Amino acid sequence: MNTVVCVQGLGFVGSAMAIACARAVGNLGAPAFEVIGIDLPNEQGKARIDSLNRGEFPFASTDSSLIEETRRAAHRGNFKATSDSTVMKRADIVVVDVPLDIDFDQPTPKLVLTPFERAIATIGEHAKPGALVVVETTVPPGTCENVVLPILRQSAERRGIQPFALAHSYERVMPGEHYLESITSFWRAYSGIDDDSARRCEEFLTKVIDTANYPLKRLSSPTASETAKVLENAYRATNIAFIDEWGRFAEKANVDLYEVIDAIRVRPTHNNIRQPGFGVGGYCLTKDPEFAAIAAREVLGLGNQDFPMSELAMRINRDMPLHPLRLIDANLGGLHGKSIALAGISYRQDVADTRYSPSQTFVESAEREGATIHCFDPLVQHWDELDRPVLNEMHQCPDVHAVVFAVPHREFRAIEPHAWLGGKTPLIVDANDCLSAEQLGAFAAAGCGVHKVGRGLVSDGAGA
Amino acid sequence: MNTVVCVQGLGFVGSAMAIACARAVGNLGAPAFEVIGIDLPNEQGKARIDSLNRGEFPFASTDSSLIEETRRAAHRGNFKATSDSTVMKRADIVVVDVPLDIDFDQPTPKLVLTPFERAIATIGEHAKPGALVVVETTVPPGTCENVVLPILRQSAERRGIQPFALAHSYERVMPGEHYLESITSFWRAYSGIDDDSARRCEEFLTKVIDTANYPLKRLSSPTASETAKVLENAYRATNIAFIDEWGRFAEKANVDLYEVIDAIRVRPTHNNIRQPGFGVGGYCLTKDPEFAAIAAREVLGLGNQDFPMSELAMRINRDMPLHPLRLIDANLGGLHGKSIALAGISYRQDVADTRYSPSQTFVESAEREGATIHCFDPLVQHWDELDRPVLNEMHQCPDVHAVVFAVPHREFRAIEPHAWLGGKTPLIVDANDCLSAEQLGAFAAAGCGVHKVGRGLVSDGAGA
Repeated sequence: MNTVVCVQGLGFVGSAMAIACARAVGNLGAPAFEVIGIDLPNEQGKARIDSLNRGEFPFASTDSSLIEETRRAAHRGNFKATSDSTVMKRADIVVVDVPLDIDFDQPTPKLVLTPFERAIATIGEHAKPGALVVVETTVPPGTCENVVLPILRQSAERRGIQPFALAHSYERVMPGEHYLESITSFWRAYSGIDDDSARRCEEFLTKVIDTANYPLKRLSSPTASETAKVLENAYRATNIAFIDEWGRFAEKANVDLYEVIDAIRVRPTHNNIRQPGFGVGGYCLTKDPEFAAIAAREVLGLGNQDFPMSELAMRINRDMPLHPLRLIDANLGGLHGKSIALAGISYRQDVADTRYSPSQTFVESAEREGATIHCFDPLVQHWDELDRPVLNEMHQCPDVHAVVFAVPHREFRAIEPHAWLGGKTPLIVDANDCLSAEQLGAFAAAGCGVHKVGRGLVSDGAGA
Repeated sequence: MNTVVCVQGLGFVGSAMAIACARAVGNLGAPAFEVIGIDLPNEQGKARIDSLNRGEFPFASTDSSLIEETRRAAHRGNFKATSDSTVMKRADIVVVDVPLDIDFDQPTPKLVLTPFERAIATIGEHAKPGALVVVETTVPPGTCENVVLPILRQSAERRGIQPFALAHSYERVMPGEHYLESITSFWRAYSGIDDDSARRCEEFLTKVIDTANYPLKRLSSPTASETAKVLENAYRATNIAFIDEWGRFAEKANVDLYEVIDAIRVRPTHNNIRQPGFGVGGYCLTKDPEFAAIAAREVLGLGNQDFPMSELAMRINRDMPLHPLRLIDANLGGLHGKSIALAGISYRQDVADTRYSPSQTFVESAEREGATIHCFDPLVQHWDELDRPVLNEMHQCPDVHAVVFAVPHREFRAIEPHAWLGGKTPLIVDANDCLSAEQLGAFAAAGCGVHKVGRGLVSDGAGA
């Protein structure tokens, strides 16, 4: 009899995790698991379920292996998706990939815990007695022990069944070309509320992940592994924020910060240093650094704990897209009545994900100041968060005063400036190292003013 | 005729650089350079000069190869040290290793530029026409172009000689066991005020450094390479500061942050993450992050530039040693009248350097609050900055209420807690991951309260 794995929540992580589990190979080369993906019976959930059952990954992706494995999973016969949570009664393992959000509109950021608690209660209600629950969701440290465990215990007692095992093992998914591989071929930390939970979690992960090359790391407690996840994202966010002030300095001091960073990165102790950019987006880096402070207040009962570096980093990252806007403002002598083309609206190169994209901050601020923004992105058809259409081809761009390259999509490196400009000379702002030195030079030679964030004025546009 | 290299300033960097140059091998295995070390004709300078001429490295060092190479240099006949700057008339190359300090006691930190300018003027006055000047000193970005170059130009004009070449190439010296190697077997960036200067600097460095394994990186301008140096130290200081808030959180959340960090460090994008510690000391990390802001105001004429992350990092690092002090305060119910042994007063493990040590902050604050501090350090005989004696053997320690391990000297890992305690049960605070888990356990078993920074209470001392 096959081990049955339910993956609860078919978002960016859960969908890919379900496919990774379906691909896992057990003894004699047979599939290791029967996998059931579960999402809510609402419009969004049903669309994801239908897509997966058709063998189509429910999100735009440039990862051909993920696309192919999704197709295979649907045809292999060991995977299906459903909105019926009662299937959990067959689950030996339930992997939790439902979101846990922060409401940043409160005076103090507050946890939006109810949907998450409801999801855990559903597991408690339906899952097979003694099933292993593996929380993959990024949660405030202490959540497994103080939120999840009490719900599961209560359910098991009410049902009079064997208690559930509970483990935490966070994902390090990286959308893009190696999406699926970022689950299966990457290091993992994990932990259990007791030794049996940890051991069963390890056994599960060993089948899904290439642990020979990416050994698992067991941590002492779920709170430790929850802390690891939010700490590593806070670290990343802080490193991104750190370089911002140096980019601005470099622009004024007439230093090319990119060559400086190249010289620094050779040091093993300094190879994580980041380069200037357009800001931070996506579901994780924009909120995870806040989770420990929230955990202290809302989960662990520790009151207010200060996280001055992480807080400052989030603030700097949020404001980062305003810097290129100020550059345009200064160069054009104001923003009112100006039209600006924004090239790149996803939060990361070569992905179509627009969640919490810094481009949103840019657009909203620019429009508040009276500018008109035309949005381009080769990978995005429609900007859901702002509900507006997106141009996919640069030549569809009307005449604009400035073009901001915000995301280093590979398509932008293929632009041939002279042909693309068609005789026009907008101000060109490379806000995220999107263009090559040759392209910057060609824009300048064509008569454009050219500014690169972290380097400064490449051309004032008078040199054509 | 040999190429003559003068090294100006025989401090921690200049002394080691002079030895590295003296060791450099040219064609046919002969020494590449005749090296003359120059320092000021004051007491400190003369002591260093005499020491080097005797074949003794003028600072306590655990680097046996540096000690041996200093001895060899004195006997090989291609090295001498002197306080007579007129020897520069023979110099083909002058390497500048004189200090450039910041006065942090001003309302706004201010550059102490005069001694540095005087040193450059001395070169201009005496150096051989057309000599190459290589500035190794960490300076505010813009200093070579805006301070050094005008002085050298003026001198050459006044003397009616060929102008000097000028390059900047910063050192990445790391005191400790691999002190000399950190000069000769490590990556270097460099730059010149013109192509000839850069080329000659490259030729010089190629003889001193193992550039086959550690290729040189040429930057576009001295300002770029000056920026690289202060940026990399600001990056390091920021990474150290970042983890502080997480250590405090971990202590309260009952998480061992060290195991968490171990799990995070496997990620190549996160391998620079630091662990909690006692603070930041030494000549570089305590001041270098300030240099860009100072450069903007005093050297580049850019006015006030904000460096919020770097400023916050320096503040957090300065206050870091106060955290273990507060732990002791809380554990002992106040500091007044308490005696504390401070184990480790240098700023770094396995070095004797006490410059700007965080231990100084600890001692001064503790004594201000009425505690008595007994200082230990296996490597330091006398604490020059505080002008007080240092105990070298732990058994010389009188009865104290608490012992703080502040520096992870290897000697501390050899302590056998039971024997060392001799029946006493002071509070043990491991503030810098100085002790092994076994040692912490043994201190606890002996009846000591044990607290580890970044982990929390290991034992309340009641479990003996």
